[in-house]
Formats: sequence, structure tokens, C-alpha cells
Amino acid sequence: MKSLLDHITYPDDLRQLVLEQLPQLAKELREFIIDIVATKEGHLGASLGVVELTIALHYVFNTPHDKLIWDVGHQAYGHKILTGRKEIFETNRQLGGISGFPKRSESEYDAFGTGHSSTSISAILGMAMASQLKKNDHIQHIAVIGDASIASGMAFEALNHLGSTNSNVLVILNDNAIGIDPSVGALKKYLTNVKKGTAKDENIFECLNFHYTGPIDGHDLEALISELKHLKLVAGPKLLHVITTKGKGLKKAEENQVTYHAPGKFDKHTGELLKKSPAVNEPQKYQDIFGHTLVELADKNEAIVGITPAMPTGSSLKYMMQKMPHRAFDVGIAEQHAVTLAAGMAAEGLIPFCTIYSTFLQRAYDQVIHDVALQNLPVIFCLDRAGLVGQDGATHHGVYDIAYLRCIPNLCIFAPMNETELRNIMYTAQMGLSRPIAIRYPRGQGVQTNWQTPFEALELGTARQLKKGFTIAVLTLGHIGNVVTELIDRMAEGEKIGHYDMRFVKPLDQKMLAEIFKQYRTIVTIEDGSKMGGFGSAVLEWANEHGHTQKISILGLDDVFIEHGTVEQLHQQAKIDTLSIEKHLKMLLNE
Amino acid sequence: MKSLLDHITYPDDLRQLVLEQLPQLAKELREFIIDIVATKEGHLGASLGVVELTIALHYVFNTPHDKLIWDVGHQAYGHKILTGRKEIFETNRQLGGISGFPKRSESEYDAFGTGHSSTSISAILGMAMASQLKKNDHIQHIAVIGDASIASGMAFEALNHLGSTNSNVLVILNDNAIGIDPSVGALKKYLTNVKKGTAKDENIFECLNFHYTGPIDGHDLEALISELKHLKLVAGPKLLHVITTKGKGLKKAEENQVTYHAPGKFDKHTGELLKKSPAVNEPQKYQDIFGHTLVELADKNEAIVGITPAMPTGSSLKYMMQKMPHRAFDVGIAEQHAVTLAAGMAAEGLIPFCTIYSTFLQRAYDQVIHDVALQNLPVIFCLDRAGLVGQDGATHHGVYDIAYLRCIPNLCIFAPMNETELRNIMYTAQMGLSRPIAIRYPRGQGVQTNWQTPFEALELGTARQLKKGFTIAVLTLGHIGNVVTELIDRMAEGEKIGHYDMRFVKPLDQKMLAEIFKQYRTIVTIEDGSKMGGFGSAVLEWANEHGHTQKISILGLDDVFIEHGTVEQLHQQAKIDTLSIEKHLKMLLNE
Repeated sequence: MKSLLDHITYPDDLRQLVLEQLPQLAKELREFIIDIVATKEGHLGASLGVVELTIALHYVFNTPHDKLIWDVGHQAYGHKILTGRKEIFETNRQLGGISGFPKRSESEYDAFGTGHSSTSISAILGMAMASQLKKNDHIQHIAVIGDASIASGMAFEALNHLGSTNSNVLVILNDNAIGIDPSVGALKKYLTNVKKGTAKDENIFECLNFHYTGPIDGHDLEALISELKHLKLVAGPKLLHVITTKGKGLKKAEENQVTYHAPGKFDKHTGELLKKSPAVNEPQKYQDIFGHTLVELADKNEAIVGITPAMPTGSSLKYMMQKMPHRAFDVGIAEQHAVTLAAGMAAEGLIPFCTIYSTFLQRAYDQVIHDVALQNLPVIFCLDRAGLVGQDGATHHGVYDIAYLRCIPNLCIFAPMNETELRNIMYTAQMGLSRPIAIRYPRGQGVQTNWQTPFEALELGTARQLKKGFTIAVLTLGHIGNVVTELIDRMAEGEKIGHYDMRFVKPLDQKMLAEIFKQYRTIVTIEDGSKMGGFGSAVLEWANEHGHTQKISILGLDDVFIEHGTVEQLHQQAKIDTLSIEKHLKMLLNE
Repeated sequence: MKSLLDHITYPDDLRQLVLEQLPQLAKELREFIIDIVATKEGHLGASLGVVELTIALHYVFNTPHDKLIWDVGHQAYGHKILTGRKEIFETNRQLGGISGFPKRSESEYDAFGTGHSSTSISAILGMAMASQLKKNDHIQHIAVIGDASIASGMAFEALNHLGSTNSNVLVILNDNAIGIDPSVGALKKYLTNVKKGTAKDENIFECLNFHYTGPIDGHDLEALISELKHLKLVAGPKLLHVITTKGKGLKKAEENQVTYHAPGKFDKHTGELLKKSPAVNEPQKYQDIFGHTLVELADKNEAIVGITPAMPTGSSLKYMMQKMPHRAFDVGIAEQHAVTLAAGMAAEGLIPFCTIYSTFLQRAYDQVIHDVALQNLPVIFCLDRAGLVGQDGATHHGVYDIAYLRCIPNLCIFAPMNETELRNIMYTAQMGLSRPIAIRYPRGQGVQTNWQTPFEALELGTARQLKKGFTIAVLTLGHIGNVVTELIDRMAEGEKIGHYDMRFVKPLDQKMLAEIFKQYRTIVTIEDGSKMGGFGSAVLEWANEHGHTQKISILGLDDVFIEHGTVEQLHQQAKIDTLSIEKHLKMLLNE
């Protein structure tokens, strides 16, 4: 059969097709996504699930004139391919290529950038209100949001506002009963009842003043298009409940929805994963060190509990959830709730490990200050994916945490340089701190092949001298310190350089700082985070307060948003890769 | 009649009374609150509204063994008086006195500190889960939350989690149809329908798997007590819908619920306010300068819109809401939504002024980064109540904003020193910036009697030299600069001191900084915010990067939580009052 997709560059081309051709297009679009993601990697399942919905939306609505926002954006591959980016789709998530998420600067069809969940209803309502004020009443406004995302507090706030307006907004609830991990919560149960027909009369969305229709089969193009055409004519806030299957069209992806959310490379015909399991003597990822160590500690300490807002697999809390389901909790996309829940538990003597990606803790900033730190409750935050995360790009880098956490009284901040340090700080924290602590570690592998070292308690606010030198002191924070260890080892003038693993951003090891500033001519700090207000800034503040006048070379991230690419590429860009650091040290040695 | 309240120190005493005595106690408790708040000031209306509920809860439940959390905490005066703090209640909100909010360190009856809204359900669920794990199944867990607070996203996240557990938690919805300002949103409309009996069959809370009872009259002690006793025996998540009248028992407070939320001094018999209106030639408060200036600008610029999350009166957005109701919006306690709504509007060419208290912007931190700054949308944030706010204390000080905003790329940060500066930056911002801006100003009066000066555009990143000197340069940020102006004027060696109103924390005026660092021996920075990562830190980072080695004296707030007191007292504590600054400058002059 002749390819339809070949002849589609923009939605205008799509709109030339007749309804009967659309299932064929859906098939081709699905194959196109599978083809490319199989070799280039990326988010697979969500986009496969909305192939029909994507086609239907662009077929019925007049994009980009009509505004369409894809919540979270994991699901937008089909949208990208149909809106001018088919030819460059293979550059997805690569340095200089297109973003894995909708992005305003990339296309006028991306009405609003997404990446973090549950923003779409607020943004589309803002746009609809703008249209009303400008009397552009003919513009349609659509947000597509998943059942996991709509359960987040921010989405509820937007529904609550939208439901009290007369704005012409269509919210499409893409209900596949799963986010990245399976959906949780009372709303999910309720939606299940709606699907089964066992919910009572009144609909929760009708209570909020929405015109509700559904549930309808999200893979039935005819039903979708007919319903969308109908809803186009309905005024006010509307919610269409669509049932889809995540991973639709690739058997393995349908069967293993968590794995195939972002499966890495796979065989495009069988779906078989191509990634080999890590070799026995290869370092594990920090996430698994966290996950396994938590189980090890929780085995002995009954007060330990684990909390994740919707990232049991990503954070590896799943190990504890599997082994101790009554003590480890996935609370859904609910970072605010997760943090204050942990505070409530800590207030009653439990020891909560609350694991949240650095970038998502931004969602619970007030709760960290107001509910945890102000009450000095010993919650243990495990900030996963701190630093540059790579291909997920600007929306997901965890690079502000040091700056935004450092100003909070009572809070300790720690960054382990390796697996042993991570294990030891977790061990130390669960022994009973009198204050909260944030432990930040990166996405990906550590450096040790034998990580199951015996636990050792750390003293708060102590750094490690890794190597003495006499001209330059390099103060590193966290995993990036390994680059320096390796570097100094092989540099010709390496013996002149001292290296300190500062590990505690707060409290700083003042005794060691005093010694360092006494002994060295030049101080260098290195961190995988924003320089403004970050770790280097903390050292600088200390030095200024104590009358030290050496220049401090602060290496870290400049005051710009950093896009996607591999972590290595991004470190090069930011000049915190091995080569750049080596150059910098050589320059300082020659001063 | 013999006083009952005289004989009650703790709830145990209350529990000795018979049901028939409780209405008399309610009357006395109400009078006690009115008596003291009339002269000592504080939050009135909310506590008057829950007098009966407070008595009923402590009568039925075995506090402090049973855990009781008062959401926001405005409503907890009766609770404080009945739980050991009757004798010291007159020290409420004063330096060294009791806090205006529940506080763990103050009493074991305050199960969880509150101040910001909508945290109670998360915290009580955490406690209930802790009880379950510890097999303390006999402990009861109660959260009392208002109808405005329950509509906030965080509360929904907690309801959604709680509804999927079997935790024995009683949520009491204190529905008085008002927060600080009248409640808004679809949920409010729905609750109104429930009260009127016009809601359809299924209840929204039942959809979320709660055992729902109500609505019942929250001023009927017998009904309350009977229902609470009944609910004590019901397992799982429960919601009791209670209807109360804010300000109950003081006619004027019932009639003017917004004014009497926190009325200042008033006549305890008539309710008449004792505060005189400000004299004609007295400076207005910054809030009103903001509110009136916004109307003035919006009159001429049709693209301007105003957004507040539930603070129309406090922020003075009410002026625009009154005059242009279709362009100024109260979105309820929904900071996250407010910010992304503004981003959506800005994406479509509107110019949103989003006014949020500094301490509450912490709730929308991720949205500022992810939805506004990353997309470089020109949202104008007006950060009200920045700096130390006084009697509201630790939960409400707006002292972290500089630190947490400074690390965000694209974002400008500005602090006006006076009314003219505030007006001019608002004027400048609405002319069309290519980036977002945060404008921070304090609670309370400005310094000018004639503030309606003609608008003048400011150049981004420019400071003002207020006075040239030759030994010490004082760099101030915002309103606190007025202290320095006055001080230098009258100091014997004042001519040696230069004074610079830096106003832009970001971008810094690098040209002026270069001149300052060339000309002065010593640099002093002064800010009404956290020193860690704050404005002084920004100057220090700049100096370090540019090779300046002068000592920089950074005055601001230390790394501790600051409690309640008058702003003057707290500035003294923090050593940023006139006298402390004078001492400090004299010391530096003598170096």
C-alpha cells in the first residue's frame, strides 16, 4: 500500500485525507515511532498510546491556530512527527536535535512547553482567557492530560478554576491507568469504577461543573473524531474521558508498560530489549545503591519508611515496596503531599526516606521549608537525578537544588562522591539525626564494583582530604570529584594539587576550610549545579566572612538553561568535563 | 453565672463538664477571645467561627493523645486557650510570647505546626500511618480544614491518597464559604449546592472513597458532639462537613468577614474598629501603591491582567478586581495554578501581573522555573510581604526569595526603595520586557507622602548612586535603604560613606559595581533577606569573579528561623535596624 505518512508534513496535509484513510495513517505513524525510538531511544509507550488521538485532534482542530497542549509531553512524538518534524525526528533528544518534549521555541504547534506533569490545564486556561479578552472567540483550546497527571494537586487547582469560568476549554483525560508507574490513589479507583460502570450517578467532573463525556475508546478513530467534532460546538469547560492502552501496537510494550515507558534500544519487530544487563563487575547505578541499601537498613530499623511521588521504578524504591509494601509508599504525582506526609510521619517518630528527583522537589519547596525544616523534623530527602540528567534536557536537570536548599535553616545538604558515601550517609541519617537532611546524587552509575561495604557513621559537617598538595586546592562536591581524582593522578604537576571531597554543602567543614585556606594559594570549587548561590558560593561566603582573600575559581553551571544531550556533552558545554578541568588547573598552576 | 472557663486549664478539665454546660463555656470562650484580640490584635473571625467545634473536639477526643491538626492555624485561638495557654494568651504574636499559629515546640496539643494552608490532611495522614505501623490503633486522627483551603492542590493530593488507604482519619471540612477573602472556584459552587440540597446524588468526597456526613450546623454543640462520637467508631477515611459562620458572635465580624479576619484593635462591645484611617500626608502602604498603580497602568494598557491566589484584599489587587473584574482574577489558594495560568496568558501576549506573597511563592517555585523562566515568558511577579513580616512570624516571613529566585536563569529581580521606584518598575515591566521579573516589596508603609509621581522607565540592571563617599560604600536593596539614607545624613563621619540603591539583584549593575570596588576600601551590603545565597552573596560572587579582594560586610538574616515580634524588634534581633547598622558602620570606619 502507498504510504500516507510520506505525504504528510503538516496537519494541513493530514486534513486532506478522508476518514477511511486514517487507520492506515495510524498504523504508519506507529511504525515510524517504533522504528526510530528502537534505535535512537526515548519515551515510547505514551506516544504509542495516543497515536489515534493525535491524528484525530489535528484532523478535527485547526492547529496551530487552535491551541493544543500535551501534558508532561511524553506523549507528543506523534504530534511532533505530524507537525513539521518528521524529517528531523531522528535527532530527538540528541545534542542540537529536537527536544523530547513540546517546546515553544521549536514549533508554533507546541503551544506550551511541558516536561513536568499537570501544568497543561492551567496553561490552556490562561490561553483561553487571553482569547476571550482579545475577543478571539473562534480559537479552540485543548489540553490532553493523563490519569496520573490529573490527580496531581496543580491539575485540581486548574480544574477548580476552569470549572467556575465560561472558558471554552476541552480537557481530554487520557486514561490508561498508568503514569510512568501504575497510577495510584482514590481518583484512580473512581475512574476504574466509571469505566466498569460501577460508579454512582454523579460524575466527579460534573461536580466541578464540567460537561463530561465518555469514557470512549481512544483507539477508535471514528468515535474520537465524531466526539471531538461534537465537543467543538459545546461551550464552556468540557472533559472528554478517553481510554487508551499505553504501548498500543507493540505487544511487549503493552505487556510491560513500566519497562517500555522509555525502554532504551530494542528490536523494532519483536520489541525485545537490546540492552544487556550490567556486567557483574560493572558499577551499579546510584538509584539501585539507594534502593538496596534502604532495604538493608529497613530490615534492621523498623522505624524506616519510604515515600516516592510516582517514581518507584526510577528511584528504585520499588525494591522496598516489593519487600515491605506496608512501609514503602508510592503516593502518585504529589510532591507537596509526599513531603508533608513525611513530616507527619517524622513527627510521630518514624524515619522517612522521601526520595524525589531534584527537579521535582521544586514542586515541594514550600513544604520542605514550612513543614519539615521549620519544625526541624528529621526527614531524609534522597534527591535523585541531581545535576545534569542528559537527554531529558532543560525541564529535567536537577541543578538548582543546592542554591534553593542552602538558604533553608536547619537543613543539612550532602552529596556522596561514590556508593560507599551514599550508603554511609543513609546509615548515619537513619541512626537518628536531630534535623532534616537532603542527599543529592546523580542519575546513573557510580564508580565502585563492590559497593556492599560495611556501614560507617559519618560526622555531620566533615569533609574528606583525598590528597594533599601545596599550590591549588580543589574542593569538589559529590560524584564529579571522581573526575578530579583520576585527573590529578595522571597530571604532570598533579602533586601540587590538593583534593578535598567536601560532601557537606551544609554544614560546611569549617575546620578543614580553615586549613585549606591557610595552606593553598588558589582554591577551586567544582559542582554539578548552578553557580549562583551554589556550593562554590557557600565556600566564598565562608572565606569572605573569615577574611581570606585568595581568588576562588568556581566551576559549575552558568546562569543559562541547559538543553538536552548526553551528560558528557553537557559537561563539556559547561566546562566541567575532565579536559576542561585539566585545562583550567594547568592555567591556574601557571599563574 | 459562675465562670466555667476560669476552671479550665486543659481539656481534661473541659471533659468534667456536662453537655448542658458547654453552650455557656462557648459564650465565655468567645468573649475571652474577643476581649484579648480587641486590644492585642490578631486573627479574629476564624477562631470565633470554630468556638463550638473546638470545644466539641476536645470534649469528644482524647487530646493530646488523639492528634488534632488545625489547617492554616488562623482558627486555633480557642484551641490554644483550652490547652494550657489561657494565662499567656495575651502574649499572642508578641516577641517572646506565644505564636499566632499552632506550634509543636509550644505545646504537645499542637500536633503539627501550621501557617500556610492545606497541609493538615497530609500531616495527619502521615501520623495515622505512623500509628498503624506502630500498632497504636487506638489513636484518633483529626484535621480541621476550611473550604478555601481544601480547594488547594496540596489538600486534593492528600485526599486522593487518604481515600485509597484504610487509615482512620477524620477530615472536618469547616465550611464558612470564605478564606481570608470569599472562597472561589467550582468546588465552592459545588459545596453551596450541597448545602442548598441542589447537588446531585453522589458526593464528590464519596467519589474519593470517603465516608461523608453532613452538612451539619457547626454552632450546634449537641449535634457536633453526637456526630463526632459516632464518627469515632467509623473506620477508614471520613469527612464531616460542618457549616459555620466566620466571626460568629460579634455582629460586625459576621457582617464584614474580610475586614474582621484580622481587624487590628477594636471596641470589644460594639466591634467598632479603633484604627484611624491613615492621615492624608502619611505614606500609603506598598500594597496600595501596587493596587492603584496597576489600575492606572491597566487603564491605558489593555494587555494587562492581574492574578492573585486568594489575597485580593491583602495584596490590594481588589482595586483592579473592582474596576475591571474581567481582567483581574482571584484564583483561590492555588499558587501553582496562578503562576502557570499567568504563563499561559503571557504566551498569548497578555501582560500578567501575578501578585503573590513572598512566602507563598515558595508554593509555586517549580512553576516559576519550568513554566515561566524556562520559556522566558514575561510574567511580572509582584512579591508582596518580602522580608520580615512581623507578628505572623516564622511561617510567613518572606526572606528566602532572593536566594531561591537568584539561581533561575532569565529572571530579573528588583526591589524598590520607595513608592516611586515601585511605580516605575511596574511601568517599565508593562511596556514589554523580553523576560520575566520579580518585584519584591515589604508589608506596610512606604516613605513618600506624595506617591503619584509621573512614570519613568528604568533601564534593567541599573543601580542608583544616592550619595558619594570615599571610605565605605553601603549597597542596599529595597526599602531598607531608607534607614541608611537617614543614618548617613546625621552621622558625624557620614561624608565618608557612599550609598548605593542597587535595586536590581539580577541583573546586577556591573558598571556601577566596578566603580564602587575601585573607589572604596570597604563594601557593606544590606538586605532584608537570608544572607545565604542572597543579595550580598551576589555582590560577593561578582567581586570574586572580577578579582576584587576588599572585605564585604554582608548584613542580612542569619541562617536561623526568625520568630514573631514587631518588624522593628525583629530587625533589631537581626542587627539590620538603624542602631545596629550605625554601630557597624562606625566600627568599619575605625578599622
